[in-house]
Amino acid sequence: MKSAPSILERARQIVEPEIETAVNELCPELLFPVRYHFGWQEIDGTPSSVRSGKGLRPALAILSAEAVGEPATTGALGAAAVELIHNFSLIHDDIIDGDTERRHRTTVWKAFGVNDAVISGDALHTLAFQILLLDPSPERVTASSRLAKATTLMLAGQAADMSFNDQPIVTFEDCVAMEAGKTGALLGCAASIGAVLSGAQKNQIDALDQYGQKLGIAFQAIDDILGIWGDSEITGKPAGNDLRERKKSMPVAFTLSSNTIEAEELKDIYNKQTDLNDAEIKRAKVLIEKSGGKERTQEEAQNQLSSALKALEGAEFEDKPLEELQEITVFVHERDH
Amino acid sequence: MKSAPSILERARQIVEPEIETAVNELCPELLFPVRYHFGWQEIDGTPSSVRSGKGLRPALAILSAEAVGEPATTGALGAAAVELIHNFSLIHDDIIDGDTERRHRTTVWKAFGVNDAVISGDALHTLAFQILLLDPSPERVTASSRLAKATTLMLAGQAADMSFNDQPIVTFEDCVAMEAGKTGALLGCAASIGAVLSGAQKNQIDALDQYGQKLGIAFQAIDDILGIWGDSEITGKPAGNDLRERKKSMPVAFTLSSNTIEAEELKDIYNKQTDLNDAEIKRAKVLIEKSGGKERTQEEAQNQLSSALKALEGAEFEDKPLEELQEITVFVHERDH
Repeated sequence: MKSAPSILERARQIVEPEIETAVNELCPELLFPVRYHFGWQEIDGTPSSVRSGKGLRPALAILSAEAVGEPATTGALGAAAVELIHNFSLIHDDIIDGDTERRHRTTVWKAFGVNDAVISGDALHTLAFQILLLDPSPERVTASSRLAKATTLMLAGQAADMSFNDQPIVTFEDCVAMEAGKTGALLGCAASIGAVLSGAQKNQIDALDQYGQKLGIAFQAIDDILGIWGDSEITGKPAGNDLRERKKSMPVAFTLSSNTIEAEELKDIYNKQTDLNDAEIKRAKVLIEKSGGKERTQEEAQNQLSSALKALEGAEFEDKPLEELQEITVFVHERDH
Repeated sequence: MKSAPSILERARQIVEPEIETAVNELCPELLFPVRYHFGWQEIDGTPSSVRSGKGLRPALAILSAEAVGEPATTGALGAAAVELIHNFSLIHDDIIDGDTERRHRTTVWKAFGVNDAVISGDALHTLAFQILLLDPSPERVTASSRLAKATTLMLAGQAADMSFNDQPIVTFEDCVAMEAGKTGALLGCAASIGAVLSGAQKNQIDALDQYGQKLGIAFQAIDDILGIWGDSEITGKPAGNDLRERKKSMPVAFTLSSNTIEAEELKDIYNKQTDLNDAEIKRAKVLIEKSGGKERTQEEAQNQLSSALKALEGAEFEDKPLEELQEITVFVHERDH
């Protein structure tokens, strides 16, 4: 069995040239910030080859073609389209969240200004549909339609996440539903688009989509744990970053909506008008652990991963790609950044 | 022959319900700013029915179905999709330009914040492709693919326009090429999408697309004239607004790139570090007129409109919609706002 990093690396080598070919059709003004975002050049234009992201979506797309007996290349264009949508959303999310760093690099809006970031994201958004629709085969059209639906769900999830800032309390279930949209929908699309482009049977496409959706929620649950208890040296984000930003992530939502004394104290900390100091961050962590917020989130990740694996049962996938999809769930569960 | 306002009004009545049905599928958080943008409600949520825009694109889309002998309704969904793309671009352009008013109303970013404006625009962008691709007929797929290409050209035009700010001089031709992308491409798509959805012949689709592209450039040339010499009472924008914002519109580009003493004086005015006062605006107007920038732009509008009409010749369109398309060129030429 291959280890997850080599699965991801193999997919990257197939998909990145597809993305680069598509992106290089953009006009020069947009090419500059977009190539920077993908890690192919630095802010001043000098060539670069920074690893941009984990490459989870391209790997899922490739494996979903192989899982139904087609070569990896059958999924490559779908992988590229999903990755374009994912990256448009990252560029716009960084504006929305005011984040100045991503993957240890300055974000596009911070490096080139909000205007360039808005329009660069827009260009990647259109490009995803443009490359899929270049060939009007029924498989490409179905893939485009599914990608549009997943993108709408992703944006609704992002809008729900933004609205959490204005709500004093959100429940754990609200949080899971939000993440099912924000992260799950596009991962479901990624994990099925290779099968769609292969003309696979409906039950196989549905199984892969379910797998991806649940993997996405689990991914986010782990992300929420790392956002509070992660090792800042490894995650590249300040320790307790999500608490400092008063994010209503799953562990926080669980505690805030619990009928406990910990909930009251955490509310008081979150309602402070000033920046939170290290002692308050530390105390918040203790309150969330004590009230079971960390445990409940770990349990959610575990349950979603079990459901993801279960979704793959009985749809008669090829052995090797099936093993690799299973391997990816282990990777998502055990990752530390 | 019908007058242009009634042509536009008829199209609006067919297309607006399609747009509203599509938009109402959005999540509640996005529905609020989007419904405000379309003039269906006020900032506080009270119902409203403000006319949003001239409705030129929907009218072109409807007429392009009728021109090839199909009913208006055949073009309605294409009209809605183009209008969704147009409105996503307006919402994002207002962020980019920092404009606080559009059509005498507060812009979305000013009313709801940049974050809501970014994501509302994104949602309309996806929705355009989602509604077209709901039915995978070859006509719908071709329409989607053409819409994606036009959107990419529109964004390249917008990026070129943004880059003009950093260039001391742009030529008249640079300006026309920029507007061919920013405005022409989507108008070409609008003016042909009804014919595409009708399964019309290639020569008819091409003729309508050419007509729309040239109409778009003429529209923008007139816009550039109104942006300098328009009556502020009628346009709803401050007099000489484009000069105050130091836009490099067609008349300005002509003068700046002319080898004249007027060019040197206009450069000096545009290079001033302070806000321009009324006397400077007035002087800039005189310089542009004297050097022929206004005349050249009027001539460009006239030439583009002649080419637009010429493109319609010989493609055997139905009489009545053909007359109405001709009527629209007169409307674009004679409009005062």
